[in-house]
Amino acid sequence: MFESKRMEISACVAVVVSVAVLFFVLEGAAAPPANPTEPVKFTEDGKLMKPDGYRKWVYVGTPLTPNDLNGGEAPFPEFHAVYIDPESFAHYEKTGKFRDGTVMIKELVGVGAKEATSGKGYFMGEFSGLEASIKDSKRFKDEPGNWAYFSFGHSYPLKKAAAKNAVASCNQCHQASAADDYVFTQFYPVLRASSPNAK
Amino acid sequence: MFESKRMEISACVAVVVSVAVLFFVLEGAAAPPANPTEPVKFTEDGKLMKPDGYRKWVYVGTPLTPNDLNGGEAPFPEFHAVYIDPESFAHYEKTGKFRDGTVMIKELVGVGAKEATSGKGYFMGEFSGLEASIKDSKRFKDEPGNWAYFSFGHSYPLKKAAAKNAVASCNQCHQASAADDYVFTQFYPVLRASSPNAK
Repeated sequence: MFESKRMEISACVAVVVSVAVLFFVLEGAAAPPANPTEPVKFTEDGKLMKPDGYRKWVYVGTPLTPNDLNGGEAPFPEFHAVYIDPESFAHYEKTGKFRDGTVMIKELVGVGAKEATSGKGYFMGEFSGLEASIKDSKRFKDEPGNWAYFSFGHSYPLKKAAAKNAVASCNQCHQASAADDYVFTQFYPVLRASSPNAK
Repeated sequence: MFESKRMEISACVAVVVSVAVLFFVLEGAAAPPANPTEPVKFTEDGKLMKPDGYRKWVYVGTPLTPNDLNGGEAPFPEFHAVYIDPESFAHYEKTGKFRDGTVMIKELVGVGAKEATSGKGYFMGEFSGLEASIKDSKRFKDEPGNWAYFSFGHSYPLKKAAAKNAVASCNQCHQASAADDYVFTQFYPVLRASSPNAK
């Protein structure tokens, strides 16, 4: 009887300890990922808060409109490093479609040099601006294609939050000239190459 | 005595099942990450195998040397999208140093257009080449700065493996003109901004 009781206690202890360790391990595994599913935040009055961490997202391409080729003041000065959030990129790789919730970032960078040991051209200087576009069929149900566009400014310091731009200021160009669902995929080789439609 | 035996068996079963489940969970947690610590592979005779997955690494900047500004044939045609492996970027963020094992990728992209709705400039076309540089004090102990340089070609199809280039072909320029440890950080704003020395 005494031995039986001891065994019973041992069984209980073994189960409790194992479950506790298991819980700890599972908790660790379920920790928030580096790039969560909802990669941006909005203020209560619907402004987009300046995104963070996007320099670790998936880079898709860099259009360049230097000031010296655009009368001294390009509409988007000057390098435009474009990113997509990782979850939406994974969806694009599978489907060739921009999922609801896709966030794209356009980080603007000034020209810092025009010659280097690798030749003549354009070389990045300092960050100068930040913009974003977001596809969201609930939040932006009245925008063409459900895409809304935000600018945090074309000079530093950037705004901490931005209301969506008027349709005329961004969406019209994207609607008229972007190759795929309001996105200029014609200038983003990483997206083109990753789409299953390209294979 | 019968009950004692049953308890003993129960204890054993509980422990065995718990350990088995724990092992399964830990195995899952230890599965290879998307970007493993060793992000590239070498052949048995020391050639670098064409890297894979680098388009999900951390983008650092895009120098541009268009053919039309370089007598029709730029040394590196034309956009150079530059990436660093994520583990080495994390180390750089903490220390401002390129760790042993750092891999940098230079993906070459041709100019596809010179005007768009955003203005005059240069817009990416198709991928045209791939290069890599790797810092490794064991594998490249005799190279200046322990950096070796590899080219998979400046036109498609790319080589599947590449021997390291002669010191004169890459390392001399990097040694003479790159701002930080053989890396042209002067053209990579993402690296400059992420270094703790910049703050």
